[in-house]
Amino acid sequence: MSEGQDSFIWLNGALLPARLARIDPSDRGLALGDGLFETIRVAGGVPQQAQHHLARLRHGAEQLGIKIPLDDAEILAAFTQTLAANALNEAVLRLTLTRGVGPRGVAPPADARPTLLITAAAWVAPSPHVSAIICQSTRRNEFSPLAAIKSLNYLDNIIARREALLRGAEDAILLNTQGNAAEATAANLFLFKKGKWLTPPITDGALPGIFRARALAGNAAREARISRADLLAADGLCFGNALSVRSVSRLDGQEIKSNPAAITELRAILEAKD
Amino acid sequence: MSEGQDSFIWLNGALLPARLARIDPSDRGLALGDGLFETIRVAGGVPQQAQHHLARLRHGAEQLGIKIPLDDAEILAAFTQTLAANALNEAVLRLTLTRGVGPRGVAPPADARPTLLITAAAWVAPSPHVSAIICQSTRRNEFSPLAAIKSLNYLDNIIARREALLRGAEDAILLNTQGNAAEATAANLFLFKKGKWLTPPITDGALPGIFRARALAGNAAREARISRADLLAADGLCFGNALSVRSVSRLDGQEIKSNPAAITELRAILEAKD
Repeated sequence: MSEGQDSFIWLNGALLPARLARIDPSDRGLALGDGLFETIRVAGGVPQQAQHHLARLRHGAEQLGIKIPLDDAEILAAFTQTLAANALNEAVLRLTLTRGVGPRGVAPPADARPTLLITAAAWVAPSPHVSAIICQSTRRNEFSPLAAIKSLNYLDNIIARREALLRGAEDAILLNTQGNAAEATAANLFLFKKGKWLTPPITDGALPGIFRARALAGNAAREARISRADLLAADGLCFGNALSVRSVSRLDGQEIKSNPAAITELRAILEAKD
Repeated sequence: MSEGQDSFIWLNGALLPARLARIDPSDRGLALGDGLFETIRVAGGVPQQAQHHLARLRHGAEQLGIKIPLDDAEILAAFTQTLAANALNEAVLRLTLTRGVGPRGVAPPADARPTLLITAAAWVAPSPHVSAIICQSTRRNEFSPLAAIKSLNYLDNIIARREALLRGAEDAILLNTQGNAAEATAANLFLFKKGKWLTPPITDGALPGIFRARALAGNAAREARISRADLLAADGLCFGNALSVRSVSRLDGQEIKSNPAAITELRAILEAKD
């Protein structure tokens, strides 16, 4: 989303120079975080796992009672237009959906027209390693349906990331209210134990990540509760999302065992392109 | 914020017709809910409890590491300008602060320039009564610092409000993860028991409301844990915020005892104007 002067944004059906794209100040996405998003890897011009991202978006929109104004084919066409306008082949697309403009107040207006926004940024390969902390300043709320949808309410994750940076690390693991591991600030968590990758269950507050689902479907990982003690005793730790699988080198200042073969296996799932 | 064609918005130092005010699509307030807001009653042209609202905003901004670009006198002058431009004397002001525009990703950019937005809407007196439910679909996260700051992450409250509307009521009480009452979707909760108004403590997930602080300071209420059972056995129940004190007439379909004298006492605190 780092739009330069010459980048293009797709907004509610129109492709616009970024500097001309206008979000209404009374859009509920801004006023109340009333919306959802998806982040999609584009490889060789092809949005990866696009159907799964759109299915997750539709599920979240249904939970929130937001009607998506386009069908999947129309959204995919908008992706193609956005990539072409920005001359990007290796990229990251972000699709943002909000409930749209509304008057003051929490109650969703019955006649809201959703805002749909697509931005593209050039692909920059993330570093394969990351240092992390276990977040102390906030917890992920596994009691909220928001834990299972990719909503615009990202402040807990931002607080956790800020804590990581202040403590000299790059990312953070969020525990849930019971003290079990839920996820990293923008990725699912994978822990290697007794020769197997484990990842926290959705009921513990893990976002149902698209890469996570692929790893589970391919039997490269299975769901299991991960405690704080498990984290520090890990035989390997990874953060995985639609963009990358990153190996955690240090956690709370302590070195984490590296397990290159196991990480390669997990990464191969992400790198199998559409 | 129901801006008509002729209303004016104050945005980053400029007073603009609402239709020309533009939020950048990559503003982190929209992208990630990375910001705060305040809702302020204006009576006889005077923003009520403005210093307390600004103090709360500054506290929240400090927690999130957002630098507010104006001092209090400058913000108060912007309030006056916004009210004058909209020819409003009896009104509701909303002040929104975001971290500003940033590139893709959770990590806050070091050089972000905050967005400050002020909108005004005509005052409409809320109904003195409200029917409510105890929210079943989500819980308030008392483990997060967000419970104590007025952030843009309002989706749990929107989910609770939607549940209320679907169940034929007007508002909802959110329980925290332990099952104790925290607050309503846009107001603090006050429960009358043994001749005294009680309100949940901040540690149970209550937002530190400006009206709530006045009621506590004036000894009209005191903090106490409120269980689900307490709610249904109440001798009176109110939702109070900077705009109104509303008496809860029904909760989960059950009639709640009315206590007009006690409600009048609470309302008198709100109605004591600056």
